[in-house]
Amino acid sequence: MLEKQNNQIDDLLQCTPTQLRELMRNGRYQGQTAGLAPGQLQGNVAILPQAFAFDFFRFCHLNQKACPLIGVTEVGNPILEGLGHNIDIRTDVSRYNIYTDGKLSEQVSDISSYWSEDFVAFVLGCSFSFEDALIQHGIPLKHILARQTVAMYRSNIPTVAAGPFDGNYVVSMRPLSGRNAALASAITKEFPLGHGMPIHIGAPSLIGIDSIENPDWGDPIEIAADEIPVFWACGVTTQVAIENAKPPLCITHAPGHMLITDLQSSSII
Amino acid sequence: MLEKQNNQIDDLLQCTPTQLRELMRNGRYQGQTAGLAPGQLQGNVAILPQAFAFDFFRFCHLNQKACPLIGVTEVGNPILEGLGHNIDIRTDVSRYNIYTDGKLSEQVSDISSYWSEDFVAFVLGCSFSFEDALIQHGIPLKHILARQTVAMYRSNIPTVAAGPFDGNYVVSMRPLSGRNAALASAITKEFPLGHGMPIHIGAPSLIGIDSIENPDWGDPIEIAADEIPVFWACGVTTQVAIENAKPPLCITHAPGHMLITDLQSSSII
Repeated sequence: MLEKQNNQIDDLLQCTPTQLRELMRNGRYQGQTAGLAPGQLQGNVAILPQAFAFDFFRFCHLNQKACPLIGVTEVGNPILEGLGHNIDIRTDVSRYNIYTDGKLSEQVSDISSYWSEDFVAFVLGCSFSFEDALIQHGIPLKHILARQTVAMYRSNIPTVAAGPFDGNYVVSMRPLSGRNAALASAITKEFPLGHGMPIHIGAPSLIGIDSIENPDWGDPIEIAADEIPVFWACGVTTQVAIENAKPPLCITHAPGHMLITDLQSSSII
Repeated sequence: MLEKQNNQIDDLLQCTPTQLRELMRNGRYQGQTAGLAPGQLQGNVAILPQAFAFDFFRFCHLNQKACPLIGVTEVGNPILEGLGHNIDIRTDVSRYNIYTDGKLSEQVSDISSYWSEDFVAFVLGCSFSFEDALIQHGIPLKHILARQTVAMYRSNIPTVAAGPFDGNYVVSMRPLSGRNAALASAITKEFPLGHGMPIHIGAPSLIGIDSIENPDWGDPIEIAADEIPVFWACGVTTQVAIENAKPPLCITHAPGHMLITDLQSSSII
């Protein structure tokens, strides 16, 4: 079973972003996207009713390290212009979370039946986008080697609130050697659309994480004796803010299951 | 008269951003802001009714080179959080343009009497912010030496439309030596909140400018035989888009008269 899964992932690594989105659109791939389409910008997704859209837009702007905005649809239009060829946000993500009144109520692979003329879709950059650059610079990322989802934690670092959207930063963590922690900081600074440089390096307790062994999302990962935990702001921060804002209906990607765009992850303005 | 004006500007150059905003708030300075508060991020201002705010937010996001968003208020709140100490957007800009149905109807130095509970204020980065860095690197900027406003032109480079907001890019132009054109490109790339690298270098006609001697805004400037015109996207692009969108009421800064923030112009994310 695991071997079959690994073979499938090796095949997926050969796919273009358009091919990957087509597999997802047809329900043929519902897995996570870390390591897929190397060099392409991947995005977190949040879909909200129009009444919440302006405050959410402000929340993203005020907390750019967690929520680097890369795309916004017109009200009611599911086609995402500017991020790639014919992206339909209703079908082109491998797995979605449905939130009712801020609570996770369902996980699905197609949201066509939920779509409303009142919806606005937001796409935010994600840390997967810089991981390829880290690997290219010889920095091993253990969760990718193990084909796992990166470990994510609730921190005690507050976001800046916007209307009903509020909460602490969610962070992703990668164990790195001391030298690689410095190198990764310098590299990721060049990826402002992928959360930029780390938000913290070192003791988890200093940012309110009591149990590094037990991530709140993703897979646990060992920190070796010669490694230090390196924390980046994470797009799941928006999901916490949405839980707090409690919109009647909201749809996001499932953590680890990103929108794969046609943009390069190193895009500069 | 000119000497008195020059002395006043020399005094202004010693002022902190807070002191400058206080002078403007009290109606004691109504001039332009190029060269003031070196190293501080300066911003274009656009104030719109709530019904236009979401589409304008999208317009800024879709056209970030012209409209790098650095601040947005809550609906109806004139205090701009996050950009500096106690900034009141109704009084802290030296001169404002009032647009009625998309047409410039008045120029004032205080908009308190126009403010509405329905307004949202947007602040966008501006090219003044990187000019200090250019000067620090030994690149002479002739319009600052001459105490003039930078030359700005309507180009034929289209923006990406968002709802009613549409139009071509407005560009600012600085004549530079060939070497400095390259150096300035490299330096300004590091200022994504100040329009980033140039949008064009060389022949004005290639971007739809037929008469480089006659700028659409700002002061004409000579291009010497050993200089080449270097064009950056300009925040006045938003004013053109607003003219096209024709909101019933809209308020912007007057070109060249920016909001001076407490942020560093080289801020990184």
